[in-house]
Amino acid sequence: MKNNKQNQDWTAIWREGHTVFIIDQTKLPFSLEIVELRSYISTANAIRDMLLRGAGTIGVAAGYAMAQAFAEYSTKKELQKAKLFIESSRPTAQNLFYATNRVCEEARNAENSEKRAFETADDILHEDEKHSRIMGELGAELIQDGFNILTHCNAGKLAIQGWGSALAPIYIAHEQGKEIFVFADETRPRLQGSRLTAWELHQAGIPHAIIVDNAAGFYMLQRKVDIVFVGADRIACNGDVANKIGTYEKAVLAKENNIPFYVVAPCSTIDFSCSCGANIPIEERSYDEVKKIGNLLIANLESDALNPAFDVTPARYITGIITEKGIHKPEDIHKLK
Amino acid sequence: MKNNKQNQDWTAIWREGHTVFIIDQTKLPFSLEIVELRSYISTANAIRDMLLRGAGTIGVAAGYAMAQAFAEYSTKKELQKAKLFIESSRPTAQNLFYATNRVCEEARNAENSEKRAFETADDILHEDEKHSRIMGELGAELIQDGFNILTHCNAGKLAIQGWGSALAPIYIAHEQGKEIFVFADETRPRLQGSRLTAWELHQAGIPHAIIVDNAAGFYMLQRKVDIVFVGADRIACNGDVANKIGTYEKAVLAKENNIPFYVVAPCSTIDFSCSCGANIPIEERSYDEVKKIGNLLIANLESDALNPAFDVTPARYITGIITEKGIHKPEDIHKLK
Repeated sequence: MKNNKQNQDWTAIWREGHTVFIIDQTKLPFSLEIVELRSYISTANAIRDMLLRGAGTIGVAAGYAMAQAFAEYSTKKELQKAKLFIESSRPTAQNLFYATNRVCEEARNAENSEKRAFETADDILHEDEKHSRIMGELGAELIQDGFNILTHCNAGKLAIQGWGSALAPIYIAHEQGKEIFVFADETRPRLQGSRLTAWELHQAGIPHAIIVDNAAGFYMLQRKVDIVFVGADRIACNGDVANKIGTYEKAVLAKENNIPFYVVAPCSTIDFSCSCGANIPIEERSYDEVKKIGNLLIANLESDALNPAFDVTPARYITGIITEKGIHKPEDIHKLK
Repeated sequence: MKNNKQNQDWTAIWREGHTVFIIDQTKLPFSLEIVELRSYISTANAIRDMLLRGAGTIGVAAGYAMAQAFAEYSTKKELQKAKLFIESSRPTAQNLFYATNRVCEEARNAENSEKRAFETADDILHEDEKHSRIMGELGAELIQDGFNILTHCNAGKLAIQGWGSALAPIYIAHEQGKEIFVFADETRPRLQGSRLTAWELHQAGIPHAIIVDNAAGFYMLQRKVDIVFVGADRIACNGDVANKIGTYEKAVLAKENNIPFYVVAPCSTIDFSCSCGANIPIEERSYDEVKKIGNLLIANLESDALNPAFDVTPARYITGIITEKGIHKPEDIHKLK
């Protein structure tokens, strides 16, 4: 593993030449396995099968996949086909489209240079790191010593390079010596909270507890949650936010209990072509994710299940959206264009 | 299994002589196993270990456990010790205390007659069946043809004899030929929704789908839920309701989306000595329930977890409470004393 001398020194995605390396997030925290992705199809499949996930990491991987396609193909038709294949892997994630479009544009402007394509994807990764730090510092100003913080899903270093998005304020506040405690929603069905966020917080030595998603409201009503941070998969112009299923529930509960609810995401997550949340496509995933854990059946075999992967939180429930450009009211997000 | 000629002909608890028989609900829906409980300690342990659960079934089992104690002991001291042991098994369930107190009183009035004790527990079971039918008929009047119904946890025939509490209106509406569809929250951590409610609905041929708890709000916001029915473990005099963790979240979301939210429970669930929800003790269960499914670790090993088994929904979120005496405004519930 890259830079693995210290516990905290790990990174979710990197490249060497034309090969992309990722931590297989489906295996965490039970084993730490690195996967090599040598073709654009392998990389796109890794996105689809969620070996990697999280808005930023999906974007970087999609950028690398696009660059791999430039290395593999030269005709416009082949490259367009590859682009559509990559973009079909996770339909809700805005950073994915941002990355494929940007890599394509830059490479085409440089005579389909694969070198330029890979460098553009590298740029996206490094900008994420820079933006993550800025968002973390902005968000940390909202965290007082002694705060209990709720987060949903995983929007940490596995999800966006640097310090993550929703977890960035938490990492920075901890770095600043503030005493904090994190409630990590387990985040059914794929348990990104209890597997990934809990693993990250443990690595960083940040006090935390896993709770079932059902218990978040319980602690909010008891005044045990001071602030909520979540990430985003796509932000519409009116400030509506698509994020992991359950985010909407937590936002409504936070508002009902007068708890500040912040979305943390870089500007690359904003879809300026999307006027409102109703226009964001919501990925429906296999019902096996609900009825099984791995190969273990956990539900009534003969029953149907429904499995929307994301929901849309209307802007009115969101206290603020933290980007690398500042803390914005949701209704002002269109001004960042 | 008793009366198992038809698929639907099953019952969660019954007795033969001094022996109590239950379906082991921890094994459902993967296997249907009957457990024989021959002593009050076995029966109390079955309640504690949740081999049986659900407000009504806990009450009946506690009544039978108390009767078994009358068969095993004769001194006031021994019986008091047995009563406390039974009552320590699940501290939140009001029906448990209702049953132990009623069986004790009746048996003592009949010179500690074990016969009278068992008959009193039988009476509780038969009253539950009668009340379940009445609550189901009252609740079914609220269900229109074509309704989509949300329920949380399992408050069906496994939880209260007859037709259940929250599921009773659903069973009756189906019996009346209404076309209905049920969203069954899976109900983490113990999955009573995806295991038990889904199993019951499948047995009865009622169309349904399992959803993760995170998705309930998603469907409410999309106007795909017409009404919510849940059960109760204890109801305070001011109409606050303790029920399975997550109920409070669903109630807030229902109110936010103008969806009627009904609690269905017999009067034996009302704790007239409890002025408000803040006084209801909330059972905190092992964090293994959050971090494991069976023996399978599903979370970061080194992380803590918190696991409140119930929450309290303030009366202001509840449209109505359906008991065998009618449909009441939560604030009127004290009048039933």
